Amino acid sequence: MIITPKGRFLKLKMTKTFYSYSEFVTDLKILTNKIDQEFDAIVAIARGGLGIALMLGEHYDIREVYAINTIGYEGTKKLDEVKVFNIPDLVGAKKVLIVDDIVDSGDTLREVIKVLEIKYPQSSFFSASLFYKYTASIEPTWWVKEATEWIEFFWSEDLKD
Amino acid sequence: MIITPKGRFLKLKMTKTFYSYSEFVTDLKILTNKIDQEFDAIVAIARGGLGIALMLGEHYDIREVYAINTIGYEGTKKLDEVKVFNIPDLVGAKKVLIVDDIVDSGDTLREVIKVLEIKYPQSSFFSASLFYKYTASIEPTWWVKEATEWIEFFWSEDLKD
Repeated sequence: MIITPKGRFLKLKMTKTFYSYSEFVTDLKILTNKIDQEFDAIVAIARGGLGIALMLGEHYDIREVYAINTIGYEGTKKLDEVKVFNIPDLVGAKKVLIVDDIVDSGDTLREVIKVLEIKYPQSSFFSASLFYKYTASIEPTWWVKEATEWIEFFWSEDLKD
Repeated sequence: MIITPKGRFLKLKMTKTFYSYSEFVTDLKILTNKIDQEFDAIVAIARGGLGIALMLGEHYDIREVYAINTIGYEGTKKLDEVKVFNIPDLVGAKKVLIVDDIVDSGDTLREVIKVLEIKYPQSSFFSASLFYKYTASIEPTWWVKEATEWIEFFWSEDLKD
């Protein structure tokens, strides 16, 4: 068993699957068909949510596209809780969409929503991801695919030689 | 003449050119060949720099990938100066790479660097963009192509039907 940079345990025998840019576009179209709300701002959970936030910001013509950062591990040591930092200014944003690539354990998304709800009690928070694991502790409002394999996203692969 | 969402004046006769994901990958590889420094953090100027920051963060294995926001226009009215907000926490980051898709007038990049240098005098700031206009008021440390046409980036086009 190895621990990935994102802090998820990965059995070496787990099947890996490459997730290409063209699948990303297809799935984002599916996602936008599911999303039945309008938003005042989009918050990307970095790093994985950044590309989604960029594309959805353009799609919905929302310039208020922000990022938020989290740490769940320090080296290989799992922290007792996810630390959330670089919280964007959401004053006046009534409806906010939080995006991430995958909701795996759910700990990150849950903590981000908790921190944002405490800081911005006037705002409503929705969430969207491309992948979702049924075992996660929280289900995003909208998601596209169940994660059954280890996903190698194009953004971590396509600059390799 | 129309004014785009990004606030740049666009002559209707200006040649438009589509910039695909595959060109993006090619150019990011060129960019990483030019970049001869290591960094402690990457700051994306939202929205245009988000995809670049994601890919470079993965490439350099930097988890400290942050975003910063700017406003240069309100509606069609050019503000006297670019407003910079959602400034990330860069305490302890000695070398920081700021990324954007295009350095056009240069006002945004110049203001972002100014604000960050004032707030983090201990840090050194470098900048990188895919496109650069020779008429810009600042030249990024590294850039790939001169911007001579109106560029339609894939992230603003590929979710259209």
